[in-house]
Amino acid sequence: MRGLIPDHMLERGRTVLDSYREPVERLLSERRMPEEGWPDDVIATFLWELSRMDTDKDPKAARIGEREARVASRLAEESVFGFCHGVGRSGTLVDPQPKAPGASIMYALTNRLVTDFLRRLGFRIEGAFVVPGATGLSIALCLSALGEGEEVIYPYAAHKSPIKAVRLAGFGMRVVDTEIEGDRIVVDPGDVEEALERSESPAAVLSTLTFFPPRSSDPLPEIAELCEEYGVPHVVNAAYGIQHEQYRDLLNRAIKRGRVDVVVSSTDKNLLTPVGGGIVYAPDEETLREVSRAYPGRASAAPVAHALISLLSLGMKGYRRLMRRQKECKALLDELLEDLEARRDDVRVLDVDNPIASAVAVEGHDPVDLAARLYVRRVTGPRGVRADDPFGTSRLRGYHSNYITINAAIGVREEDVKTAVERLERELEGE
Amino acid sequence: MRGLIPDHMLERGRTVLDSYREPVERLLSERRMPEEGWPDDVIATFLWELSRMDTDKDPKAARIGEREARVASRLAEESVFGFCHGVGRSGTLVDPQPKAPGASIMYALTNRLVTDFLRRLGFRIEGAFVVPGATGLSIALCLSALGEGEEVIYPYAAHKSPIKAVRLAGFGMRVVDTEIEGDRIVVDPGDVEEALERSESPAAVLSTLTFFPPRSSDPLPEIAELCEEYGVPHVVNAAYGIQHEQYRDLLNRAIKRGRVDVVVSSTDKNLLTPVGGGIVYAPDEETLREVSRAYPGRASAAPVAHALISLLSLGMKGYRRLMRRQKECKALLDELLEDLEARRDDVRVLDVDNPIASAVAVEGHDPVDLAARLYVRRVTGPRGVRADDPFGTSRLRGYHSNYITINAAIGVREEDVKTAVERLERELEGE
Amino acid sequence: MRGLIPDHMLERGRTVLDSYREPVERLLSERRMPEEGWPDDVIATFLWELSRMDTDKDPKAARIGEREARVASRLAEESVFGFCHGVGRSGTLVDPQPKAPGASIMYALTNRLVTDFLRRLGFRIEGAFVVPGATGLSIALCLSALGEGEEVIYPYAAHKSPIKAVRLAGFGMRVVDTEIEGDRIVVDPGDVEEALERSESPAAVLSTLTFFPPRSSDPLPEIAELCEEYGVPHVVNAAYGIQHEQYRDLLNRAIKRGRVDVVVSSTDKNLLTPVGGGIVYAPDEETLREVSRAYPGRASAAPVAHALISLLSLGMKGYRRLMRRQKECKALLDELLEDLEARRDDVRVLDVDNPIASAVAVEGHDPVDLAARLYVRRVTGPRGVRADDPFGTSRLRGYHSNYITINAAIGVREEDVKTAVERLERELEGE
Amino acid sequence: MRGLIPDHMLERGRTVLDSYREPVERLLSERRMPEEGWPDDVIATFLWELSRMDTDKDPKAARIGEREARVASRLAEESVFGFCHGVGRSGTLVDPQPKAPGASIMYALTNRLVTDFLRRLGFRIEGAFVVPGATGLSIALCLSALGEGEEVIYPYAAHKSPIKAVRLAGFGMRVVDTEIEGDRIVVDPGDVEEALERSESPAAVLSTLTFFPPRSSDPLPEIAELCEEYGVPHVVNAAYGIQHEQYRDLLNRAIKRGRVDVVVSSTDKNLLTPVGGGIVYAPDEETLREVSRAYPGRASAAPVAHALISLLSLGMKGYRRLMRRQKECKALLDELLEDLEARRDDVRVLDVDNPIASAVAVEGHDPVDLAARLYVRRVTGPRGVRADDPFGTSRLRGYHSNYITINAAIGVREEDVKTAVERLERELEGE
Repeated sequence: MRGLIPDHMLERGRTVLDSYREPVERLLSERRMPEEGWPDDVIATFLWELSRMDTDKDPKAARIGEREARVASRLAEESVFGFCHGVGRSGTLVDPQPKAPGASIMYALTNRLVTDFLRRLGFRIEGAFVVPGATGLSIALCLSALGEGEEVIYPYAAHKSPIKAVRLAGFGMRVVDTEIEGDRIVVDPGDVEEALERSESPAAVLSTLTFFPPRSSDPLPEIAELCEEYGVPHVVNAAYGIQHEQYRDLLNRAIKRGRVDVVVSSTDKNLLTPVGGGIVYAPDEETLREVSRAYPGRASAAPVAHALISLLSLGMKGYRRLMRRQKECKALLDELLEDLEARRDDVRVLDVDNPIASAVAVEGHDPVDLAARLYVRRVTGPRGVRADDPFGTSRLRGYHSNYITINAAIGVREEDVKTAVERLERELEGE
Repeated sequence: MRGLIPDHMLERGRTVLDSYREPVERLLSERRMPEEGWPDDVIATFLWELSRMDTDKDPKAARIGEREARVASRLAEESVFGFCHGVGRSGTLVDPQPKAPGASIMYALTNRLVTDFLRRLGFRIEGAFVVPGATGLSIALCLSALGEGEEVIYPYAAHKSPIKAVRLAGFGMRVVDTEIEGDRIVVDPGDVEEALERSESPAAVLSTLTFFPPRSSDPLPEIAELCEEYGVPHVVNAAYGIQHEQYRDLLNRAIKRGRVDVVVSSTDKNLLTPVGGGIVYAPDEETLREVSRAYPGRASAAPVAHALISLLSLGMKGYRRLMRRQKECKALLDELLEDLEARRDDVRVLDVDNPIASAVAVEGHDPVDLAARLYVRRVTGPRGVRADDPFGTSRLRGYHSNYITINAAIGVREEDVKTAVERLERELEGE
Repeated sequence: MRGLIPDHMLERGRTVLDSYREPVERLLSERRMPEEGWPDDVIATFLWELSRMDTDKDPKAARIGEREARVASRLAEESVFGFCHGVGRSGTLVDPQPKAPGASIMYALTNRLVTDFLRRLGFRIEGAFVVPGATGLSIALCLSALGEGEEVIYPYAAHKSPIKAVRLAGFGMRVVDTEIEGDRIVVDPGDVEEALERSESPAAVLSTLTFFPPRSSDPLPEIAELCEEYGVPHVVNAAYGIQHEQYRDLLNRAIKRGRVDVVVSSTDKNLLTPVGGGIVYAPDEETLREVSRAYPGRASAAPVAHALISLLSLGMKGYRRLMRRQKECKALLDELLEDLEARRDDVRVLDVDNPIASAVAVEGHDPVDLAARLYVRRVTGPRGVRADDPFGTSRLRGYHSNYITINAAIGVREEDVKTAVERLERELEGE
Repeated sequence: MRGLIPDHMLERGRTVLDSYREPVERLLSERRMPEEGWPDDVIATFLWELSRMDTDKDPKAARIGEREARVASRLAEESVFGFCHGVGRSGTLVDPQPKAPGASIMYALTNRLVTDFLRRLGFRIEGAFVVPGATGLSIALCLSALGEGEEVIYPYAAHKSPIKAVRLAGFGMRVVDTEIEGDRIVVDPGDVEEALERSESPAAVLSTLTFFPPRSSDPLPEIAELCEEYGVPHVVNAAYGIQHEQYRDLLNRAIKRGRVDVVVSSTDKNLLTPVGGGIVYAPDEETLREVSRAYPGRASAAPVAHALISLLSLGMKGYRRLMRRQKECKALLDELLEDLEARRDDVRVLDVDNPIASAVAVEGHDPVDLAARLYVRRVTGPRGVRADDPFGTSRLRGYHSNYITINAAIGVREEDVKTAVERLERELEGE
């Protein structure tokens, strides 16, 4: 550019430009999570450049396959940052795709970053990759790749996705019922062992790390020990388990103590992406390749790109800041609910030991109706469960109270918590 | 706006604005494919407005669930047109999601449009819906929902995705080998019947409508008849079967004559979206609900939005125009290949009856090496297969020639075809 | 949309959508500055809809003029939000343009908002409009429209733009030199009167409200009184005068006491737009029409759209917040400079009474060189002036000290102020 | 990126990426118009990178001036491609701005390209630059910079902008009336000479190259000769004169034969940008610097960026293609109007020798009313003029017919021409 403007200005301009180029170059050479987050426009330009390596962008290419990433509308093309070929080969999800060198680099880089990210957060894992499908589908892939028998053993948690995942992978299910300990609904390792013994052909244990209270986390270390003892694969559903150290520590103890084959988390619930991606991670890299080989065909690049965007946008610092804020909001939630309990006879805060969510028993109210009214009052997310609802309570034999849950998950704001508790009180009042 | 500019100008301005609003209003009231395509900006604004109905956009909402569509970066949010909650409920993919009224409308509308689209193209179906996963995954869902026994009967076609789909759905596979008829590789209905008889527990027949030549389409009407007779579900892999009447007619004959439960096509190969979506359609709507119920959890809204964008962007007219151009390009391809054959001893155009693709035997050349060299010469898509490759030839007992395929699929341009044949000749020469 | 999703969800979705539509409808009916700012996407959609009223957007129009807003690239079209016809008629800048009803509404609305904005900030004016040209050009238009004689009387301020504006409008200039009062450079009203008396054909007085210290604001009330007395138009250069009440009050006193024809401010310096727009405002609306009639031809819509975007984006609340922050940053700047003065012998904070900027005498340093080094050290904006530089000091007969200025103008951040003072100290040290 | 994907894929990807980088690198080294146009996304990325050199983008800068390109909304920032500092210094429009190295390079490059563009089109000029103001304002700058006396001599053409430009620059105007030659309204060089003789203090001659028929182009060579003879600057208004060789040739003859100081054209009418920019070009570079020095202050970067975008988007090839199409459309227009004339007694095609526009006498119709009705019928651009309207006819003593004009300017489409003539006939009929 020399000669268009005076040299000292050019120098000054280059200093600025370098501050945009430097993080990109560092990322490509180090392939680690950046400490500082990137601005959106830098991320967008980086993705644009990567997708300018895919063959459908080649102005001199003759494209004569049946899938050539031809796109009817620029709107759609831009919405996947140009990665029109998607990700994956029909063989294996994480394999590079010859028609899409750029998307392949993007995917490989994302997987490196997410591995680095988890390890720097303290997870004792060796590898990780992003699945272009949400938690339920990711669990199905894991079970399909690793399950060896006929029946998945499932300590009961009231969520349809894992149940459907087991079914999609073609397995039967042996449900282990839960127990009540004070206010908590817990899984007794003895019951899991009994299920392992009784099952003629156990395919895997699907355990649950994160769930709505009063359902507690499964006793992962004990289950891991049993899986090792019985030689049964262990798949952990850690849907929103990346965001808090309590989950990480429980998981790490399980990895140390016994057998944990793979762990599945959601990109949207942990990395704040739009819904659509899962993260599969494991103490052993080879297991991940097997899971990756279970995916039938290719997939949208969007969920992968979204994970990459979140990682780059937040950086380690941004994520740690979000984790701190989550804890503050949870503390605020507890405080406000205790105040509410102190003021009202019909509310009792359940003793549940959950780092993300709280549950309150609502005596004399229909919790399902209460949640419906809160929906109309623009409160989203409360889960109202009747004591005698075997599905909702995560306990086939029911629970001792009607209750409602409130989450203070990562990304929540103080005003969400305050407004939600206020509106809850108003609805309790209003009856 | 009265009073800011003179009334007659305002009137004139409103005339223009109405020409943008009218198609949107018509779409919302009629819910049919528009005849004329829409400009990108009109589509973008429409999607933006729909996503402004999702609760995560509500400035007055208190969001206290564990999944609240919180997004770390605007870049990601905009890339899914604001549909951060994705689509689906954990129960059923096509069910509306209370937190996402806008995305639910978007999805319902897309499914209405794709149904109307297929029916207006002449497909004898009752319903259709878009799966936020590509063909392979869509086949897995269909098999999982409909398969009843242990073993999927698969007339052999050399593609890994369907094979993996069968595995993901937890079924075994009984392969029916193919036969040679002149240059064509065909499936003998008698062999399918034999497989049905021999199988102890047939779960479904997975037939193939579209494939690389010399592999022909399966005899769908005969297979449909057998499926009815034996009471076995019939899933059709019609990966790129929407784009040509020859496929439609074969499929319609099968529907008329026997049992076709569901058909699966790709959004990217037929609707020119980025990779990531499948279309499942059926002569009976209830079957579709079952397939929809097989999906575990929620999914990215991107593949659905992409299908909607393509449909709106093209309109019926645009799609018919693309179909005409495909035929012209295919005719051109045939002509150029016949010229090439006339000039050269080492090339013979195979007689394959495929409306999309051509295959040429390349005597004295290694077709795999030839395809690799064409990749370097910026020709993407040719498939080079050695006669003795049991996988590639779609015939376990091999084929009589080495060959290479060239596709003139929907969206291809004349220059692709010309350049590809030129570069092929140069490579043949160059050895 | 009824029927696509359950009614109660649709209702919920509409509640959200209405929170986006309501501000737009209120704006169009009330035409006043919103109290709360709007998100960018709401603004973008609003502008898009307005520009969909311009005739170049009419898909059924036959466009056969010599200017038809044909645009070679969508990139350029989108960058002006579709207002390709620009603003203005060849007759009068603010007149509606028949080919561009949307742009005309956009412009009329912007002018209403900016008038409301200024009045709510307390300016005693009757009207205002945005000039699609920066301060200098806006001053030229005002002088051209209002000046009646040959010579503009200009109390001296060291800025080339006003001087060039006088020249562009075809006038001669009679400079009134400044005086020193302590550290301040001030204009003596007596000198202005003398100039008015001596001038054979005074066209206007061009006074200065905002300037770098140590140059003080002109004595506007006294000049206004003189302009009334002498029947000479009075144009006020208030480049960044909207952001602080001290300027507003001085201006209001002038309006009350004498003759102020028009006031010119910058959109970028006051409203935080990209460079390119001016705001002309006046106690009398008819004067504004005359200024508007002086503009030759049409102009880019971009500067007008930018002003509208800033107004909508900030809202009254956002602007008031920025004003508060400016005051905090200025207080911080003063504090840091006083600390610096306490620590160093070579620095003396000048006593200048400027609500935006500070000036420090830098004994024994070359202020021009100092500013150049700060530029290299990534400090932008300091102005280094040598005592004997007649242009820079705003005093033909020089000033008593070398000095450097630092601004804490609206939009500045605390870290800018801190870093600038730190780096200044380092450079002072480094010599 | 090595190691993330196999080397041969990386190689292939780089081949694609290079096809995007190569034109940018060539542009920066050669600084000439590209032969082939660029896609929008390549242009956008290029502009984004340039603006990442401006100091307001520097994350480590301390910004403490009164103008620091702080922007309230990302929407506005992106709409000027990040060039928030605008262009120009208060001194001289084309001078580089230390705070904005990127914008300065962008502007310098644009001016190089536009010069190269004009020279390759065959204009005998030495330099050119883009004014961030439309034709009228550009003329005012030229007159202000070059005019030396009191009175601009203006061969009469019915357009307010040039008249206002003369006024803005502070000059009086001496109008030279036109003559009738057959159907044409022409300027007699003798009348111009008479004006030059009579004027006590001629500042410049402002001649007109392009105008609505029946007004012909001024006799530029003769006027140029007179200007040389009388030592009076010559400013040419060539509003839409770049698009056709007939104008270029007339201008070149004038440059060869006498004095042409500067020529002014519009960016929107010639380069198909949004309204807002002018191009000033001259046989002598020094004159351009003088014009550039006349601009008071800084200006929006948008009109400059738009010119650059058009030039890059079209390339020489694209522009030449547009010129060919214009000629085809004009031929079509002539043919259709002759057909109309043959069919109707009330229409007579005027003999006007205009390469862009045609004029038809409409006997027995009110042309003003006719144009108004065409506006309602969605025909934009026809100009209806009554014979006795001294302003409209460009002749103070009137014209022999009522008429209406239709333009086939660059960018017009065949359907515009056809529809316009059809609707004209319908309106003629309808009376």
